[in-house]
Amino acid sequence: MDTRVSHGVPTFAPAPFELAAWSKLQLARVERALQNWVTAEAPAGLGHGAPAALVAAMRYAVLDGGKRLRPMLVLAGCEAVEGNATAALRAACATELIHAYSLVHDDMPCMDNDVLRRGKPTVHVKYGEAQALLAGDALQALAFELLTPDEAAIPAALQARLCRLLAQAAGSAGMAGGQAIDLASVGLRLTERQLTEMHRLKTGALLQGSVVMGAVCGAPAPEQLTCLQAYGDALGLAFQVVDDILDVTADSATLGKTAGKDAADDKPTFVSLLGLARSHEFAQELLQRALAALEQAGLAQPAALGALAQMVVNRNA
Amino acid sequence: MDTRVSHGVPTFAPAPFELAAWSKLQLARVERALQNWVTAEAPAGLGHGAPAALVAAMRYAVLDGGKRLRPMLVLAGCEAVEGNATAALRAACATELIHAYSLVHDDMPCMDNDVLRRGKPTVHVKYGEAQALLAGDALQALAFELLTPDEAAIPAALQARLCRLLAQAAGSAGMAGGQAIDLASVGLRLTERQLTEMHRLKTGALLQGSVVMGAVCGAPAPEQLTCLQAYGDALGLAFQVVDDILDVTADSATLGKTAGKDAADDKPTFVSLLGLARSHEFAQELLQRALAALEQAGLAQPAALGALAQMVVNRNA
Repeated sequence: MDTRVSHGVPTFAPAPFELAAWSKLQLARVERALQNWVTAEAPAGLGHGAPAALVAAMRYAVLDGGKRLRPMLVLAGCEAVEGNATAALRAACATELIHAYSLVHDDMPCMDNDVLRRGKPTVHVKYGEAQALLAGDALQALAFELLTPDEAAIPAALQARLCRLLAQAAGSAGMAGGQAIDLASVGLRLTERQLTEMHRLKTGALLQGSVVMGAVCGAPAPEQLTCLQAYGDALGLAFQVVDDILDVTADSATLGKTAGKDAADDKPTFVSLLGLARSHEFAQELLQRALAALEQAGLAQPAALGALAQMVVNRNA
Repeated sequence: MDTRVSHGVPTFAPAPFELAAWSKLQLARVERALQNWVTAEAPAGLGHGAPAALVAAMRYAVLDGGKRLRPMLVLAGCEAVEGNATAALRAACATELIHAYSLVHDDMPCMDNDVLRRGKPTVHVKYGEAQALLAGDALQALAFELLTPDEAAIPAALQARLCRLLAQAAGSAGMAGGQAIDLASVGLRLTERQLTEMHRLKTGALLQGSVVMGAVCGAPAPEQLTCLQAYGDALGLAFQVVDDILDVTADSATLGKTAGKDAADDKPTFVSLLGLARSHEFAQELLQRALAALEQAGLAQPAALGALAQMVVNRNA
């Protein structure tokens, strides 16, 4: 700890927040939990096990890959309000399962038809389209199963609230809705407003939902929750702006997925709409908006949320 | 009411249960609720609406069709224990949304590649494969959203329990798992045990889950719940045996879907394994097993559950 002496009285300044160390610790928890929860073991009460081939496809889709941004946001959101860590770990994994299922379905031939994801063949390339479809479906169900364990460590009211938030973030007025708008926009010239709305749903809803799910694991004041929603909204949009920038500036090896895909697919992006320079500026503006909302919230432990917003905007992959 | 006079004292015998009248009443409630809940209106708290094209595909998949067997089982299960009718109506609709999404995905070209369902073009034929995929995904999310309303009429503990039961019934150790086994069994000669296990997951888990979800809307004793699980298990298997019988004995117009599809696809069925005569016998045995479990449960109002089991086995479509 950084201890300074001033006028003979020792004062304690907090150590600067180290995102790398924090993330490493949290990632280890999340990976371990996902390893345990995405298995073929029969859940209590049903008495049947899941078939091995399906579980293999589910594990392939979820394990050993990805930045785990949504879980990190859940855990940072919970830490910010000093909430229930047991609940937050389940919520963190649930958001990742939803994200993973959406990638599996999104990569399928009838959608984006992508063959490379996180540097590996996509699920349908490896396991076939039918198995990929079912693995995605089963991952979504598992997300809600994770949120509703038959144990008292997570109060029922919190379980129900987390399910509600996740369902809204994932559904027709959230992620799935955004993908439908995306689908309908290929080859169209969207306005900035329309593009923003699409991304608010497609990626923003689940990113924002992750922050909020983490926060409700504690007892934030209503105004604090409003600030965290604003933080999540700005961060979610910034994430997509940076994604669009990286799609044209990074290579496939760095990205772990096919670069230049959006332009090739004639999809509207922030870069095609605003240009590269303005897109960079816009990302920085959104970062400032996120950090301002965070400061306004007056949270107990906001450091991880702040650092994650910085990372989202300044990443290179 | 049937009033009899015996030794001068009037006694009241219950009127015989009329499934047609009961179903008509319950169906009207379910259809009205589905009409209201599968909409483009923004759910409270998120502030975005769902895109119209996606909602159109979702509504097409859900409304105006189907026997609504799962909702009827939920409502009958709740009635049997005189449970919370508000919760049961949501649970009833949630099971139907899961069933509807599974049909949408199951009909897709990478799965069963079917073009006719409930006498209409399947969702992917009408709206395209990508929209069908997303509509199915969004319907699953909506099922969990329905179960977790932000209102006190349904206790949080019940909301969480219903989510858990539905997630288990729909996921990798339930419906999705059964579909994966189905996928892997094309062209194979399964044993009766393997075929039974596949159907226990593929259709049985959600049918049984529907009965149980209805029952937990009240306060059944543990032994009663065990009996209802046995009832649901027998009914679920009977449903599939009869489905296999109808696939070879009924025509497409009566079924509302392509008849003879299983044989054409070289899928193992109870009829191909046991023959038609033994399949009929087996269905009747399962009906007796379901009714025996129901009687053993000693429920307050078991009539609808009993009549539904009769209907499942003796239906002709």
